[in-house]
This record gives sequence, C-alpha cells and structure tokens, in this order.
Amino acid sequence: MTDVATESFIDRAMGNVRNAWRDIAVRARLGSDKVRPDLPKADAALLTERIEECLEGRGGEVSARARAADLGRLYLSLSPAGRQRFLKILAQDFGVVRGAVEDAMAAYREAGDDDPAALGRAEDRLREALVSRRARLLTQLTTLPEGFKFLVDLRAELLGLLDSDRALAGLEHDMRRLLASWFDVGFLTLTRITWDSPASLLEKLVAYEAVHEIRSWDDLKNRLGADRRCYAFFHPRMPSEPLIFIQVALVNGLAGNVQTLLDESAPEGDPTAADTAIFYSISNAQKGLRNISMGNFLIKQVVDDLSHELPNLKTFATLSPIPGFRTWLDHRLAEGEPNLLTAAEHERLRAVMPGHGAKGSLKALLDSPGWHRDDKAAAALEKPLTRLCARYLVNEKHKDRPLDPVARFHLSNGARVERINWRADTTAKGLSQSAGLMVNYLYRLRDIEKNVEAFTGENKVASSPAVRSLIGG
Amino acid sequence: MTDVATESFIDRAMGNVRNAWRDIAVRARLGSDKVRPDLPKADAALLTERIEECLEGRGGEVSARARAADLGRLYLSLSPAGRQRFLKILAQDFGVVRGAVEDAMAAYREAGDDDPAALGRAEDRLREALVSRRARLLTQLTTLPEGFKFLVDLRAELLGLLDSDRALAGLEHDMRRLLASWFDVGFLTLTRITWDSPASLLEKLVAYEAVHEIRSWDDLKNRLGADRRCYAFFHPRMPSEPLIFIQVALVNGLAGNVQTLLDESAPEGDPTAADTAIFYSISNAQKGLRNISMGNFLIKQVVDDLSHELPNLKTFATLSPIPGFRTWLDHRLAEGEPNLLTAAEHERLRAVMPGHGAKGSLKALLDSPGWHRDDKAAAALEKPLTRLCARYLVNEKHKDRPLDPVARFHLSNGARVERINWRADTTAKGLSQSAGLMVNYLYRLRDIEKNVEAFTGENKVASSPAVRSLIGG
Amino acid sequence: MTDVATESFIDRAMGNVRNAWRDIAVRARLGSDKVRPDLPKADAALLTERIEECLEGRGGEVSARARAADLGRLYLSLSPAGRQRFLKILAQDFGVVRGAVEDAMAAYREAGDDDPAALGRAEDRLREALVSRRARLLTQLTTLPEGFKFLVDLRAELLGLLDSDRALAGLEHDMRRLLASWFDVGFLTLTRITWDSPASLLEKLVAYEAVHEIRSWDDLKNRLGADRRCYAFFHPRMPSEPLIFIQVALVNGLAGNVQTLLDESAPEGDPTAADTAIFYSISNAQKGLRNISMGNFLIKQVVDDLSHELPNLKTFATLSPIPGFRTWLDHRLAEGEPNLLTAAEHERLRAVMPGHGAKGSLKALLDSPGWHRDDKAAAALEKPLTRLCARYLVNEKHKDRPLDPVARFHLSNGARVERINWRADTTAKGLSQSAGLMVNYLYRLRDIEKNVEAFTGENKVASSPAVRSLIGG
Amino acid sequence: MTDVATESFIDRAMGNVRNAWRDIAVRARLGSDKVRPDLPKADAALLTERIEECLEGRGGEVSARARAADLGRLYLSLSPAGRQRFLKILAQDFGVVRGAVEDAMAAYREAGDDDPAALGRAEDRLREALVSRRARLLTQLTTLPEGFKFLVDLRAELLGLLDSDRALAGLEHDMRRLLASWFDVGFLTLTRITWDSPASLLEKLVAYEAVHEIRSWDDLKNRLGADRRCYAFFHPRMPSEPLIFIQVALVNGLAGNVQTLLDESAPEGDPTAADTAIFYSISNAQKGLRNISMGNFLIKQVVDDLSHELPNLKTFATLSPIPGFRTWLDHRLAEGEPNLLTAAEHERLRAVMPGHGAKGSLKALLDSPGWHRDDKAAAALEKPLTRLCARYLVNEKHKDRPLDPVARFHLSNGARVERINWRADTTAKGLSQSAGLMVNYLYRLRDIEKNVEAFTGENKVASSPAVRSLIGG
Repeated sequence: MTDVATESFIDRAMGNVRNAWRDIAVRARLGSDKVRPDLPKADAALLTERIEECLEGRGGEVSARARAADLGRLYLSLSPAGRQRFLKILAQDFGVVRGAVEDAMAAYREAGDDDPAALGRAEDRLREALVSRRARLLTQLTTLPEGFKFLVDLRAELLGLLDSDRALAGLEHDMRRLLASWFDVGFLTLTRITWDSPASLLEKLVAYEAVHEIRSWDDLKNRLGADRRCYAFFHPRMPSEPLIFIQVALVNGLAGNVQTLLDESAPEGDPTAADTAIFYSISNAQKGLRNISMGNFLIKQVVDDLSHELPNLKTFATLSPIPGFRTWLDHRLAEGEPNLLTAAEHERLRAVMPGHGAKGSLKALLDSPGWHRDDKAAAALEKPLTRLCARYLVNEKHKDRPLDPVARFHLSNGARVERINWRADTTAKGLSQSAGLMVNYLYRLRDIEKNVEAFTGENKVASSPAVRSLIGG
Repeated sequence: MTDVATESFIDRAMGNVRNAWRDIAVRARLGSDKVRPDLPKADAALLTERIEECLEGRGGEVSARARAADLGRLYLSLSPAGRQRFLKILAQDFGVVRGAVEDAMAAYREAGDDDPAALGRAEDRLREALVSRRARLLTQLTTLPEGFKFLVDLRAELLGLLDSDRALAGLEHDMRRLLASWFDVGFLTLTRITWDSPASLLEKLVAYEAVHEIRSWDDLKNRLGADRRCYAFFHPRMPSEPLIFIQVALVNGLAGNVQTLLDESAPEGDPTAADTAIFYSISNAQKGLRNISMGNFLIKQVVDDLSHELPNLKTFATLSPIPGFRTWLDHRLAEGEPNLLTAAEHERLRAVMPGHGAKGSLKALLDSPGWHRDDKAAAALEKPLTRLCARYLVNEKHKDRPLDPVARFHLSNGARVERINWRADTTAKGLSQSAGLMVNYLYRLRDIEKNVEAFTGENKVASSPAVRSLIGG
Repeated sequence: MTDVATESFIDRAMGNVRNAWRDIAVRARLGSDKVRPDLPKADAALLTERIEECLEGRGGEVSARARAADLGRLYLSLSPAGRQRFLKILAQDFGVVRGAVEDAMAAYREAGDDDPAALGRAEDRLREALVSRRARLLTQLTTLPEGFKFLVDLRAELLGLLDSDRALAGLEHDMRRLLASWFDVGFLTLTRITWDSPASLLEKLVAYEAVHEIRSWDDLKNRLGADRRCYAFFHPRMPSEPLIFIQVALVNGLAGNVQTLLDESAPEGDPTAADTAIFYSISNAQKGLRNISMGNFLIKQVVDDLSHELPNLKTFATLSPIPGFRTWLDHRLAEGEPNLLTAAEHERLRAVMPGHGAKGSLKALLDSPGWHRDDKAAAALEKPLTRLCARYLVNEKHKDRPLDPVARFHLSNGARVERINWRADTTAKGLSQSAGLMVNYLYRLRDIEKNVEAFTGENKVASSPAVRSLIGG
Repeated sequence: MTDVATESFIDRAMGNVRNAWRDIAVRARLGSDKVRPDLPKADAALLTERIEECLEGRGGEVSARARAADLGRLYLSLSPAGRQRFLKILAQDFGVVRGAVEDAMAAYREAGDDDPAALGRAEDRLREALVSRRARLLTQLTTLPEGFKFLVDLRAELLGLLDSDRALAGLEHDMRRLLASWFDVGFLTLTRITWDSPASLLEKLVAYEAVHEIRSWDDLKNRLGADRRCYAFFHPRMPSEPLIFIQVALVNGLAGNVQTLLDESAPEGDPTAADTAIFYSISNAQKGLRNISMGNFLIKQVVDDLSHELPNLKTFATLSPIPGFRTWLDHRLAEGEPNLLTAAEHERLRAVMPGHGAKGSLKALLDSPGWHRDDKAAAALEKPLTRLCARYLVNEKHKDRPLDPVARFHLSNGARVERINWRADTTAKGLSQSAGLMVNYLYRLRDIEKNVEAFTGENKVASSPAVRSLIGG
C-alpha cells in the first residue's frame, strides 16, 4: 500500500534505529568466548550457572549487578535461536518456587489478626515467595547502561515469540508487570518535539509512526511547522527514545480530511488564531511496552499544555482512522444481513455498478479501484457508508466493548464520537481499512469524567446528536 | 558540641530547605475549605470518602490521579496533629484485605501444575490481593508535581511518629517497599557537585551533612576545591534534591587527620598528582529513604569515575569516625573487664591522672577536657586506646555483625580495616564519640568480592596486618 | 563604615575572585624562563622583540595569535613592577607612527572627489595609519582562552596606574576604544540571576556590589527572593563574569527606605501583586570597563522584561543614594552662603544643638553620631535638609550637568527626580554621604525621550511637582 | 551537472533556509505603512529623514537603537528594487564627510609631538572623522534581534549588486570592515556537529555545502558517522547559523578518491584506529562574510581538537578539488604551447582518439563523455595529466600567487602539495573542472610556520619529493 520510495525511506529509518543496538553488542567486546551464539545445550548449562551466581548475590549486590550486566551483553551477542533458548531457560527454570509459596501460605494462615506485626511479616513472606527468581534478575539488569531500553527491547522480542512458544508466557507476564511499574506515568516527562530536535530523534519518529506514515524529511518538517505540535513521553533513563508520541494540527473548526492536513504545499496557519486542536496521530513507539497504557495521560497533558500556551483553543478533538470498519462491513455483507441498505440505496448502487446482483454491488464498488474519484459512485456510497460507520462505531460491540480498537481507546478516555468524515483518508490504507472514512472523537473537558463513568459502568458510547441521528438514535 | 555561630549557620540552611515545602503548601491554595487543619473526626469521614473515590478510579485513571494529587495537597495543609490522623486512617483502614488473600490462596492451591497459564493467573490474583489499598493510593501520588519528594518526606514524618504509634508500622512498611522499588539504583544518576553548582543545591549539602558539619560557605567552598570531589546520587524526578552524597579528598598517602583535611587555610593540592582518594564523609540526605541502601553503589561508581578521570590514583580509602567506640569502652570499664589495660599502661595513666583508683584513671582522663592537647596524657593513652579500638572494630560483634555501624557499612561493602589514627578528630564530637580516633577503611578493588563473601558468609572482618598485630591477631 | 564581620565577608569574596587569575597564571606554566618577574632592562629588550614578532605576523596569523597568547601569559607571570614596565613599553614604543599618518594625509589630499574608489582607498590608508601597533597586538590577545577577561583586567590595572604615570594615557585610550567596540550592547545578553545560579557567580555579586554592600549569604539570598529580581549583562566570551548588574524590589508604591527593603526578616511579598519595581542598586562589575556605558540599556531591557513577566507593574523607579549631597552642603556651609536656612529653621536647630553659633549648628548636628535616632533633632532637620537636597539635585550643576553623579546617570537616561526620602538610608555610609536621604528617580516610559531631549539639549532637569514645590520651582 | 533529485533536495534545503527570513519580515508586522515596497522617490525622502534621526541620537542612544531596528525591519519589507534604493541612499548620502576630515587633518598637523595628550586628541578627531555616518547606523543595527544575521545577509545582497552598481562599493567596504571586526576569530566558538544536532541546523549544511554536494539525508548522515567529524565556527550572536564548516574523514593512509569516502554503503571505520584525518570539504556558509578569513583558524583548531581526542592520528591532510586545472589546460592547448606532451604521449593519445590532429587529441579525449571509464584512454592520459596538474599547482602563478584558488588557500596556511590523485573525483563537476584529478595538501605541524614564511616571503610553493619529481623539480 505504500509506494516504493516511501517504503525505502521508512525502512532506512527503521534500519538506522535497529543498527544502534547491534553496535552496542559489537562494541561490548564480550568476554563471552565460552558461549556460542546459538547457545547449544552445553553452553546453556554455563548460562544457568551464571544466572544462579547473579541471584545468589555472591560478592555483594554491586558485583551481582555487574554480573547481570554481563549476562545482558551476552544476550545481545546471541543469534535469534540462541536468544530464544536464553529466554526459555529464564521462563522454565527461574519462575516462582511453588513450595516456597505453599510454606508462606501456611505461615500466613497461622498468623492471627491480633498481632499486626506478625501478620505483616507473614504478608511479606508471601509477597516475597511470589516474586519469581527471573524477576530479580531482570531488576538487576536496569543498571546496564541503557538497561531500560534493553529490557523494553527484550520484551518486544519475547512478544514476537509468544505465539509460537507459549512456554514463554510466564516470563512475558513478569516483564509486563515490572515494566508497567517502571514506566508508570509518574516517571515520565512530556517533551515537545520540533524541527530543532536532534535529527537522530526525528529519525525515530519516521520509524515509529504507525498511523499516517511519514514519507520524507519534508513531510516530517511539515508536521513540525508553526501550526503543528508534536509531543512525546520520555522516560528519564531512556532519554533518546520516545515512548509514545502524538501529532497535533492547530486549525479552525473540526478538520475532516487528513490529506489536507498533511499537504506540504499548504500555507502555514497562525497557531495563535486557531480555535481547534486536532490530534491526528498517536503512535506507540516501543513494541516492548505493549499494553502498558500511557495514551490517556499523554492526551490529558497535551490538552493542558496547549490550553496554557494557546488560550484561543476551544475544541480538542481527534481525526482518527476506523481500522476495523471494512472488515466488519465485509462480514455483514458476507453474512447477507438484510436491511443493511435501503432499497433506494441498492438501486443507486446497482446503477453505478451493474451486474453484481442485489448484494454484490456495494462490495464490488468498494473493491473497484479509484471509486472515490468517481463522483457518481461516491454520491451513491456516501449516505449508506456514513450511516453504517456510525452504527459500527456506536453500536457494534464484542463483550460489551466497541469492536473498533481506536474507538475503544478514545471512548475509554472520555471522548465522544463526534462526526463521521466522508472521503477523509483516500490513501490505499485508508480506503482498504475504512472505505476512506475517518472520525472525529471530541474531548469536551467538562464531560470527560461523566463519559468515562457511563462507558466503564454501563457500556454507554457517548456520541454527538448528529451521529445519533445518522443511526436513528 | 557545635559553636553557636556554626549552629545558627546550619540551622538557617535547614530552615531554608524546610520552608520550601511550606511554601508549596501555601501556594497550592487548596480547595480544602471543608477539611480543618486538625482533621477532627467529622472531617476524617470526608477524607475516607475521598480516598475511596481515588481507589475506585471513578472517571478513569487520569481523574483518579488528579484527585489523589488533591489529597496530597490537603495533607500538606494539615497541622501536625491532622497529619498524624491522616496517616492513621491510611494505616488502619486501607491495608491488605485478609478475606481477599484467603480466597486467592484457596484458588492457588486448586491451580494444578499441569496448566501453567492457570497457575500464573492464580499467582497474579494472590499478588494483587497482597497489594494494600493504601499502596495503590501512594502510587497515584507520584503524579503530583514533586510527587516523589512528597512521598519521601511523608515517610520521614512517618518514621518520626513510629515509636509512639506502632499502628503506623504497616503503612511505613508499604512505603519502604514502594520507595525501595522507585529509588532502585537503576534509576539514579551520579552527579558531581562543584562550586559552580546552584547555591540552592549547595545550601542543601550544609543542611544534610551528617558526619563533619559544614560551618560556613567558606568551609563548603574549601570542600569543593580543585583537590576535592563531591558526588551525589539524584533521582530523575527529584532533580534538585541530593539523595546521598560523598566527599572525597585527593591527597598523597592515607590521610589520618580530618582537621587537616578540612583546614581552609591549607594550600590547594594538585589533583593530577594525588595517589590516594580519601572518602571522608558520606551522608544520607533524605530521612525518608532510611534503610534503602545506596551507599555501596555510590562508592563503587565514584571509584569508577575517579579512576577514569585521574589515572594516578592508586588507593581508595575512607577516613571514618568510630561513633560507638567510647560507649563500648565505657561499658567495658563499667563492667570492670580485667586486662583491658596492661599493668604498665595502668601505671602510666595513674601517673598522669592520679587519685582515680586502678580502674578509674582511664575514664577520668578521657572525660577531662583538653586531654588531647596534653602531650603526656596523650602519650599514655595512645597505645592502649589504639589497641582497644582495633579490637572494638574487628572483634566486637552483636549477632555476628560488628558493633560499630560505620564499620558494618564499609565491611559489608568489601572494605577492610586498614589503620587506626590517633588524635585524628579532636572536635568535641570526635572526642566524645571515639576519643579522637578515626579509622581508614581500604577499598582494594581486587579484594572486594572476596571480602564481601567472607564477611557475609563467615562473619569475617577483613583487616590489615598492622591492625591485626595491634590486637595480637 | 562597614562592620568587621561584613568587611571580612566581602574581602573573602573579593579574594576568591582575584585568586582565580593568579591560578591561571600559575597553571600556565610559562615557558617564560628568560624573562624575570620584574622585567629588568635586559629582559625588556627581549619583550620588545617578541612583540615585534607578533606584529610582523611571521609564520602566518594563526602563529602570530599563538605568540600573542604567550605574551599574555608572560604578562600574568610578572610582578606589579614588571607589569608596569610591560605596559610602558606598549605605551611608548607601539603607538601610531606619525610619519605614516602624514604620508596618508598627503595621499588623501591628492585623491580627487571624482574618483570615489581612489578616495575610498585613501580613506582606508589613513584609517590604517591611525591604528596604533599596540592595538593590533591587543586584538590578537582576544584569542587567549579567557582573552576578553584578560583585556578587561589589563585595562583595570592600567587605570590604577594612570594617575601616577601619564605616559600610559595613550595605551589606555586605545584599550577603551577597543573594549567599547567589543562590549557594544549588541553583543551582550541579559540574564536573570537567582538563588539557583552557581555559587561561583553569586560570590561575584558580593565582591562587585558597589551601592549597598551584601553582608552575608543570607543577605544575598534575601535579595534573590520571590519578590526580588536581579539581572546582569554578560558578554558571550566572558560567560562567568557579570559586566553590570541591577537589583530590583517588587513592591507596592514607591519604596522610601532601603533598610526596609533589605530587611531579611521581612515576609516575602507576592510579585504578581506588586505595582512598582524599585531599582535599588546598579553596580558596574568590571573596573576595566569604566566609562563604557551599559547601564541605560540594562535599565531599558529590565523594564521590558519585567513588564512582560508581570503585567501588574505600573511604576518603574529607583531608590538611589545621593553620594555628593553632604560634600556639597559642607562646602555651602563653609562658604557661609546666606539664606541656606530660614531664621525659624536656624532657631530650631540651635535649640537642639546649642553652643555652635549661627552657622555651626547644622553641621554640628549632622556630625553628631546618632542624630537620626533623636526625634527632636530629626524633626528640626527634615524640612531644611529635604529642601536643600532637592535644590542640590535639580539646580546645582557643573558645566551645565548636575553635580551629583547618580543624578547625572538617571537624568541622562530620561528619568525624573520624583521624591526625596527622609531617614531612608541610616547606615554609616548613608549618613556620611547624604545625611540619610535617598531619592527616587522615576522612569515614566512615555516621557523618557522627551526628558532625554530636554536634558541633553537644554540641560533641563525633569522633576515631579512635589520636588519642584520644595525648591519653590 | 547535478541530477534532478539531488538538485531538488538541495534546492528545498536552501528554500527552507531562505524562508526563515521572509517569515521574520512578515511577523514583524511593520508599522511601515508609509513606505511602499519599491521605495519610490517620495518615500526615499522619508527614509533619509529617519536615518538622520537615528544618527542624531535624539531621545538618547537607547531610543536611537530602537529606531534603527525599525529601519532594519523596514528594509526587510522592501522589494528587491526597494532594497537596492535603500542601499544606494546609504551609499551616496551617508559616507565620510570630507570637510570634517580636512579639518581634522589640519588640527593633527598643528598638534606638536611634545604634548602627547593633545596629539592623542588630534588622532581621535581624525579617526572619528573617518567613520562614515552609515557605519554608525550599521552598528546600531546589531541590537536588532538577530541583528548580526541581518547585517551578514545585507552584505550578501550588496555583493550581488556590486557588479552592476559600483556606487555601492563604499558601503560594501564599510560593511566588510565592520563585519571583519565583529567576526574576528576571538569571538567565534568551534562546535562539533553530529547526527544528534538539530535537524534545522543540519538542513543548513545541505544548503551551504559548496564542495561535494550533499545529495540526501542519508548522504548527510553518512558524513556524520563514527569515522567522520564535522566542525563549524559559530558566532555567539548567530547561534543557529554556521559560519564555515569542515568535514573530516578518519582513515588509514592518505585518501585518494572522494567517491570512496562518500560511499554510503561502505562499512564504518573505527575512529580510534585511524592514523590519518582527511579534510575533504571546507565550505563558507555565509556569503555575507566573503573575504573575511576564518578557514586557517578553523583548520588549526580542528587539528588541535582531533589530536587531543584521537592520539593515534599522525597525518592531517586534505583531499581537495583543483577547480582551475581544466580551464588552465584548455588555455595552454588553445595557445598551442609546444612540449605540453611528449611525442610518445601524443602518439598514445592519437591511438586512442584518432582523427584530431597533433594537438587536438588531448582535448577531444577529455571532452569525450565517459573517458574515465575507458581503461585504455585513462592509461594514455594518466601520466601526462598528472604531470601537467603538478606543474599547474606548483609552478603556475598570477602576480606571484598560485593560479588555483584552493591551492592558494592551503599553501598560505602552511600546507604543502603532497600527492596528485588519478580518477579521484569522477562526478560531472570533478571531470569538467579538474579532469577527475584531486590533490592532497599535507599539514605537517612542524613545517607550517616555515612553509608560511617561504610562501609569504619568497613565493615558494612547498611540495613533496614525489610531486617535485613529476615536474622534474
């Protein structure tokens, strides 16, 4: 879906970022001569021994941390197969010791309520018993130079292996818990990124951008212009790695088309005159931090920061993709759901796309390349697609949660479904995922808590009157 | 023991540091009109309600954190009595829920070893049940501006109340665990402090210095001269607060007298020509981080840093006080331990200090003001005191650990008792605590692990041949 | 006039600052073995030779600058007598070459107006001929590390020698011209100084403060509190040396007493509520920049900065000493000017201070220690002194300029004499220089240009109606 | 000569840099409503009036500078034609006043040698009279925000107009003198530029690179890799604008081919193992600083910096273009200089390139596209071209200075002609300017002064034995 030049631009950026780690491994000049890159069985025993040494803390905690760092460097020197074996050893041999838990539980049961100190000690013993041995090792690894980045990347690799090797699940679970604690929002700092930021950092935005790919340095520069803002969360021990970043356009009125927003030839607006901040891209930059939520705090802090800097801003909203819409719609069409379209709509579609039977014309039209540039086709599609999209976003759920992942995110943060935008993203990706539609989620500050409550407690999706009227709500 | 001018200098520095927090409280201009400073019973109910709201997370995690921050500000607005009541509520009403633990234990016992995923979930449930409700609240407080400083100071206040109110022990315990995790050495950065550092930071050194009080800005400047080094650990979210700091003198040969080191009128040495780094003061700056060990890592990193900057340095050692020596010696004298002194020593002492009987002359002499300036008295004391001090440091233990707290610290880090220094600290404090003696602990890099092992495993105290020969070892 | 403790505090600060240079000289480890510190005649020839080498530029400009730097280091290694000889050589042997000027003048006269290029070349030749040879050398010295500070200090030394050795005047003149060009306000940056500034910088404020001495670090900290501001101009190549600094108090209404302003025990005001900024001290920090005006630009930029930061500020004024008042008054009394006091005033004074004849009572009273604490004496003095002071400031002139140097400075910047303050500075210095009086000069933005014009063009002193009414104006 | 994609890359970079100024002009929102962009005659009178106001200094120097800044903003708002008129007014109406010079000369002649003070005053008066009135105005403009950049760009515009309008020469001359004083090397700081530098700065390298164009961000990143260095001089008041920058490759042995150096796919070398630093590009970044020499100091400081950082470096040399070689050679061929080639060389060339007569074959071959890829042609050319190039560099002069501008620069800095490299730059530019040849100039530290002396004093070109043997020297 991406053209070749852009692809290679992004690939290069990603490659550049990847290489940094390879270099650290090389520079480390490991004294790991005894361990071969593939970690064959014979060497695995040696590894286990070393891990035991770290955990025993022989020679004191300072020495143990130094040895743990050596283990970290050893890991970086391994081949993919060797790394998987390393992780497997951690997963299988260094978990929680059940016997210790059982003993601690027994002690807990015996501790009476009348002696709080004794009860506290029993709680502690039980807590301790529940800390896996590998969790101790992972904590020691934070003292590696760039130790936090190491651990984040370790989890990223682990997540990639998880599907094919469920035995790693416990280890992954430990890592998630540790990282969630270390990357708690209380540790993070919000930083604005501009065209004056280091090129080495900007390059990472290109590699990590997940919503609307950055096609070139000119595209990037345009996104950092005077009428744009880009913010990221950083962890103090990973100062050159954004964790999550958000891109904002400062405009007048709700923006309804992302190509217009990203048009490099458009004149720059005056940010002090803008009344609306459009969040048009939020990207998690670190795969290894998956499922550790930061986006809600990011939005909150950016809204605070912008309100303070630009008092003219009255509206805070997103311009968001609807990544699951086409898939859902295709399922509905395949299932032959009746009344998806009105008879009049059917007729119009058949007129534009004859020869596909009663049901087929909608899908055939959406699959036909370039339909969005054909005004007659577009006219026939606009009304039914917009309505179906509103229904998809507001009413379609799985286990009481909205089907669409982006909708789930913003609704759980307290936004509401504000407006469906027609022909809003006509890139190949936009067309194939959401038939070119995009949606604005509106963050109305005084409604956020109420919306969160209704969404969390009663599974209610907040939406604007206009959206509700689309679906007869 | 401190002269009046110095005392008032240090008091002012402490006062300045204290006032910063009062100001934050005042500036916060709390909307806490409903809660009176003393937190009378009626208001306590309101507080409990607010805490519950935070823990329920109504309106989402972002809102919950904002509410927790309000609670933090409320705490700062309370009187000492009100604060104690606040803490008591946390301690008594928001602990671990025993029923939930019992249920989770039951589920754990049922989880079989054959289904690791189910076992993992059972572990998790048990872990969760063991997290007290107040621990969740305390975590939310990190998002306060200066939240980490707030929590550190909260624990400091708590520690002050603990003796008189044991019901707070569980809360204190939770705080210690949380702070130990957040102030893990993996998060800390080592920073050199110089005369070019902010005055507002240097003022804190004056307030926090615990070993050899800083008497004036000139004294401080002298300690930051070209032949001195001062390093501190900082936490990234408490950037203007040193956590622990160490003062180093770059000299030639082992330094044996702290007054010489601190003499402001002495000429400045050439650091590149020095062969020895003397650590003459290590101070914990934050009472609220008591028992969270950082000193060992600090020494290790400072040794690394200095070795790199000044390749001429060959010896790393301390010049340390012996705070428990006189107390221990007085006990021995009171108990009438025989053979504490040889007959010849007794005789000499009696010659200097007649009229105190066989046993009394040593104590009488040590209690007589100015004995250290009396060469005859000093000559009579030097040999026996040095020997007794060596014995105290190397052989005297409680539960297999050395009696002296400073000795315990350095020996557990892998140092050895190197040399006892006579008339080494003749301040009032030095005389009253350790009869003017000081000791060098030597950090010999290649022996550190071995020493730690011997100390940890076999309770062996490493010492130099000279020290061993003093005690006939 | 300064008490001993304060004096020694300031002396130490000054000493500290001075020592920095001595150290550079020592560290330079000059290869100047051939030149003895006193620069005896034999060595002077060697010096002349070296200067010639620099000026010839042998080996290229890069080498010439390196050699000039060596000369700079040589200078620092000399004794005071040696330095004076060094300067004398520069002054006498490396001035403008008259013959070259005469030749260039002849060429200029021949160049006709019809060939602008030829005329331009003739102008250039004449300009070149007027650049003294020592000026070339001084320019080369800027490439010394800390070269600008070196040159500034060189001029300071030169100014100290000028009275006793007029032969140095030409050299001093060259230096002033060069420094005026290099320290043009276009190069300077305005920086706010706070309690978070480096201690090494704050120490310089103590050393350089010229109006109200800073008595201690507590006094200094008080002057950097929330309701105070301190700004300095810095030169980019002298980043740790303030050039001139100004101290501002943010208050309500015109401040009339400097002891009140400097009272460390007074509560801190709220700067956002202040309506008036009082400039209570402006000090030139570098003796070597004497007569190079910066104060007018400093005031202008500080007013801009404060207006922007604190929009509540409506009034910008000084609280200034009147350093020449007592001297002038004593002259008037000595001359026996009639009608200095009214008959009624005379009588009142005689009642307070009998036995000094018709004329003597005023002077006798002012010379009697502690008069300002005697309410009766003060009551008798207030009216006549205030009136005479107003007359002194507004009407008394030398060559059409006000007698008082502080008045000259502020009036030439466009301020007006606003209010005379009674018992406003009762330090020994305040009493002896200005009978305890101080004056507010008011900077009213819309009047500044008009006042400057009137002062510059017509020698008119702007003053408030109240001040004019005091002198019957 | 540049391919289209690269050209547009560089054009965009230049455009970006240009736009910054346009924006400042626009943002200034000038109150220049009375002056039309083309500055018609009527408005020109108004302008003259305003300039007079600045020069008179009405309302004081602070106000005068503010008014000068307004004039600067006015200039930025003008059209090209308007700007030219503005400059012409400065050039024609605000020069040196001849009458004042004549008077000052008369006074100078009268001042006797016996009164140095009077003579000094006469010198001063003459100096003052030689300062043009526009020079005063230009100095006032430094207080503009970004005033120095403004003046540098002003001179750049002026230089562009000079050829067609000689009346501007005097103004340009004044600007050069002022800028040479303000951008004296004593003010400049050397800064290393890396991939971590701001993108907005790196973009300027692309725009300003004058030797080997930077084709893309990947090309740029490669030039900032671990085995490369890039340094620039900056002026403290133009912190985001490099003045001159140099690119260095850290290699082993003298590099002889620039395409190899710039190959993005080549593996990165280890800088600590390199023995040679190759300066392969020096570019002046500011047209407005033309003829203000900085390159010699830049090379000197970079050599110092690199020697310190990488003690393994033994050789410092350039890999330089020979921009005038082909032009010179073509002239020789056109003039029919005999013995340019030997008979054997002629024969070989005719064999490769028949049908061009005795003289024509060399030129015909060099003009034939792709000859450098034809091994036979190249073999026939290598020897004669290398010899002729050596002769061109070492022997060919104009007014005793080498013909080649790059040679002049490095030789005047003390380098020597070390080696001629065959097929060293086969870009279109390299082939057309220097027949694909490049030259290494060697900076041997111990010879630099000697070489400068010989070059400056005796017009001797230093060269290696190998180069001398090429030309039979």
